[in-house]
Amino acid sequence: MPSAFPENADLITRDLFPGVIANVCAGEHLTLSRVHFEPHGVVEWHSHPHEQVGVMVSGKARFEIGDEVRILSSGDIYRIPGGILHKVSAIDGPAIAFDVFFPARPEYLVPQT
Amino acid sequence: MPSAFPENADLITRDLFPGVIANVCAGEHLTLSRVHFEPHGVVEWHSHPHEQVGVMVSGKARFEIGDEVRILSSGDIYRIPGGILHKVSAIDGPAIAFDVFFPARPEYLVPQT
Repeated sequence: MPSAFPENADLITRDLFPGVIANVCAGEHLTLSRVHFEPHGVVEWHSHPHEQVGVMVSGKARFEIGDEVRILSSGDIYRIPGGILHKVSAIDGPAIAFDVFFPARPEYLVPQT
Repeated sequence: MPSAFPENADLITRDLFPGVIANVCAGEHLTLSRVHFEPHGVVEWHSHPHEQVGVMVSGKARFEIGDEVRILSSGDIYRIPGGILHKVSAIDGPAIAFDVFFPARPEYLVPQT
């Protein structure tokens, strides 16, 4: 069984967008992704069939989910149903968010070339 | 469709253990729980068939998962397979963690009496 505590060496790093990387690992049925935004980093509008839920860990970001918009900071929760367009923009400096996907996204766990 | 941004009025508050409350809401297929520890708050040893994954949002806590132990702080990730015993103890002050469960735990969404 993999460690309950994935550390840096266990996490796959993915370049998502300019100024945005993710540290990703697998659960049993879920995929976990800790997303690190440099100042002004933006996850552009996109959607996927997977449900995505998460929490803002540190910093601030503007979340646009469907037709809703909020500025989130540490401890704020969000939930994105499958298929809903969303965009996330760091504001006022760097930021970290934590995402969980269901169903799992095994393609996320393949290192980028 | 419920808001993508559950705010306080949308979250159900559960007393988990002395000094530990959770703010809970439903996703599509997942259950979300933001757990607030007072100083010295402890989630005692327990297990459940649901997979649980999460992140430390703020503060520090000692996580015991099966036979592994770590002190986690902001941004640290954990993953608890279904059926594995675990315990979480806040250390050095208050702490907040964010948990996601699969399958969903609808019984968690019923207000306590």
